[in-house]
Amino acid sequence: MSATLSSVPEVGDPVAAIDTPALVIDLDAMERNLAAMAAFARERGVRLRPHAKMHKCAAIARLQRAAGAVGVCVQKTSEAEALAAAGIDDIYISNEVVDPAKLARVAALARRVRLAIAVDSAEGIERLARAMREAGAAIDVFVEVDVGHGRCGAPATAASSLAHRVVAHAPPEGGLRFAGLQAYHGAAQHLRGAEERAAASRHAASLASAARAGITAAGIACPLVTGAGTGTFAFDVASGVWGELQAGSYLFMDRDYADNAPGPNTPRFEHALFVKSQVMSRGAAHAVVDAGHKSHAIDSGLPQVWQRTLAYANGGDEHGILRPLPGGSAADLPQLGDTVWLVPGHCDPTVNLHERYVALRGGLAAGVVEAVWPIEARGCVG
Amino acid sequence: MSATLSSVPEVGDPVAAIDTPALVIDLDAMERNLAAMAAFARERGVRLRPHAKMHKCAAIARLQRAAGAVGVCVQKTSEAEALAAAGIDDIYISNEVVDPAKLARVAALARRVRLAIAVDSAEGIERLARAMREAGAAIDVFVEVDVGHGRCGAPATAASSLAHRVVAHAPPEGGLRFAGLQAYHGAAQHLRGAEERAAASRHAASLASAARAGITAAGIACPLVTGAGTGTFAFDVASGVWGELQAGSYLFMDRDYADNAPGPNTPRFEHALFVKSQVMSRGAAHAVVDAGHKSHAIDSGLPQVWQRTLAYANGGDEHGILRPLPGGSAADLPQLGDTVWLVPGHCDPTVNLHERYVALRGGLAAGVVEAVWPIEARGCVG
Repeated sequence: MSATLSSVPEVGDPVAAIDTPALVIDLDAMERNLAAMAAFARERGVRLRPHAKMHKCAAIARLQRAAGAVGVCVQKTSEAEALAAAGIDDIYISNEVVDPAKLARVAALARRVRLAIAVDSAEGIERLARAMREAGAAIDVFVEVDVGHGRCGAPATAASSLAHRVVAHAPPEGGLRFAGLQAYHGAAQHLRGAEERAAASRHAASLASAARAGITAAGIACPLVTGAGTGTFAFDVASGVWGELQAGSYLFMDRDYADNAPGPNTPRFEHALFVKSQVMSRGAAHAVVDAGHKSHAIDSGLPQVWQRTLAYANGGDEHGILRPLPGGSAADLPQLGDTVWLVPGHCDPTVNLHERYVALRGGLAAGVVEAVWPIEARGCVG
Repeated sequence: MSATLSSVPEVGDPVAAIDTPALVIDLDAMERNLAAMAAFARERGVRLRPHAKMHKCAAIARLQRAAGAVGVCVQKTSEAEALAAAGIDDIYISNEVVDPAKLARVAALARRVRLAIAVDSAEGIERLARAMREAGAAIDVFVEVDVGHGRCGAPATAASSLAHRVVAHAPPEGGLRFAGLQAYHGAAQHLRGAEERAAASRHAASLASAARAGITAAGIACPLVTGAGTGTFAFDVASGVWGELQAGSYLFMDRDYADNAPGPNTPRFEHALFVKSQVMSRGAAHAVVDAGHKSHAIDSGLPQVWQRTLAYANGGDEHGILRPLPGGSAADLPQLGDTVWLVPGHCDPTVNLHERYVALRGGLAAGVVEAVWPIEARGCVG
């Protein structure tokens, strides 16, 4: 098929030439977000290890490293493998792995890059230690504490016994380097009120702090508490408990995070990730765009229609239905073939639907494609 | 990386060796569904053109053709391109395309395979005609009528004027072969009560029938009405209006379709698509599996936990939280490392998250991998 019949944009293409639906980054906005978070971490003296589960892309991980990030987090073994294959060499799997076959892959990867992982059970630690021993590999290990989400993580009271078990497999005989605590309160990120998020952060800080105190009281050094997301990081840093931030969504900002009431002393991040869509059908009182929930995730609600007085209604897997906002009229509706920009409800699973980013310089209205970045870890759920 | 460290199963692997999360087909169940729908269409004398937007896989399309299907439907140009590249040669894009660059791709494809497309506007017909003329290609064209969904499709009263416009571009001068009406009521498929679905089908049938009458009254032959989904096809066929069925989900059956009250004279389809997950963390009163909504779509609700007395709660992108059903106890919870099978809430967008199917013969408990099928049209949203 000739280049003119490809659906993949090329560097230098004008925005109008980008086939729809497409996952588009406003580079100018993204770079402002990148710089704002880097400056925040630098000024507060905390490490930044952004969560690459959000962007799944080596090119973006490199930009984050260049701006001062110490490395990236991922949630899955296969994500770590994909980013390592693309050249990223300092990766933290901030999640538990207990399957022996998967742990053998973790161990093989730990021989190639600087790797860390989370644990929350004695059985998980023993399995990890066995895999590392069999591969002759070493890995940084964080004990995960449940600081309020009620998902993974041991109770704070169990942290010292788990840390003890990790230390029992320390080098040179074992392959587990105890690195500290994983303390991430996922549910707190999306509480709408700033004071609600502050309270959840205080609760998480008290649990993480208690877990750390138990570990140091047992005579084990606890080098780091890592965690925090885009919704709570400013509160978390103010507590003094966290030494490393894992925020990811700050880079793109989705509709869901923008729905949070802003907190004090927090950088303001801009929407930098969009789905470009096109009107493919028109009714008397509605328009239909070619982007449904195979193009943007709706687990955290529907997308916002960018800079138009239109509401997006769920049109199924392949369609979105646009109607005027209350008080508007059919004259607000776009015409057949018009471009409509959508701000995804949730960036992480939206990114996971696409093969590539189209990185645009100069704004959505008249920008030019500056880069096309593969999303190497797309679909890496294992 | 050696074969033993790959996450991709191989033919002959036991079910226990399948890395999680994985998209797994119970082949025995799928083949019963395949045969039941093929028999239904054959006995009622209607054509079956299953919707490949659901499975996005050439291997499955070939099984459907072998069982009597006349071809497949897709929703997107890039889906058609992907399946054509994999050898599928009779494809209907049951959706509108209005972008000139995309229409050039449609025309290029129409020179290689038997291709059909839907239209719902005069402007769309003119653009399509221009693209076909410029490529020297021909295509079957269905005029889409809105039969109740309120999404794409012209009003039934406008069908004859659109058909007239299509016919004005008929071969040999033009490239548009008027093929009939597209009449699909998407929202009707998921109405829970059988009588509700029957009523929606009657309404759709009356509109499709009126549109067809208008066309034939204008002296234009209307060869076919195509449409119908897994929720309404038996009602649709009983109306006598539809000559071709586009059902797709019957092959896999998701939790959402199983929630419909069954209608009369309808084959019973079985769950044949599963996400294999693994318990990666245990709390005192819950278990966490490694499959969240990056592994299964939740637009139509959460997955069902297969053959266990457990409820699945949303644990975010990468996790699912399992708790005992009311009246159960923590003793019902699986242990660390255990396999848990999930029935996705909605099969189409779940499939769209994965690179491949693992096709299992002999059941979920002790089956063997018979095939690994690439999902060629995954992510083809453009």
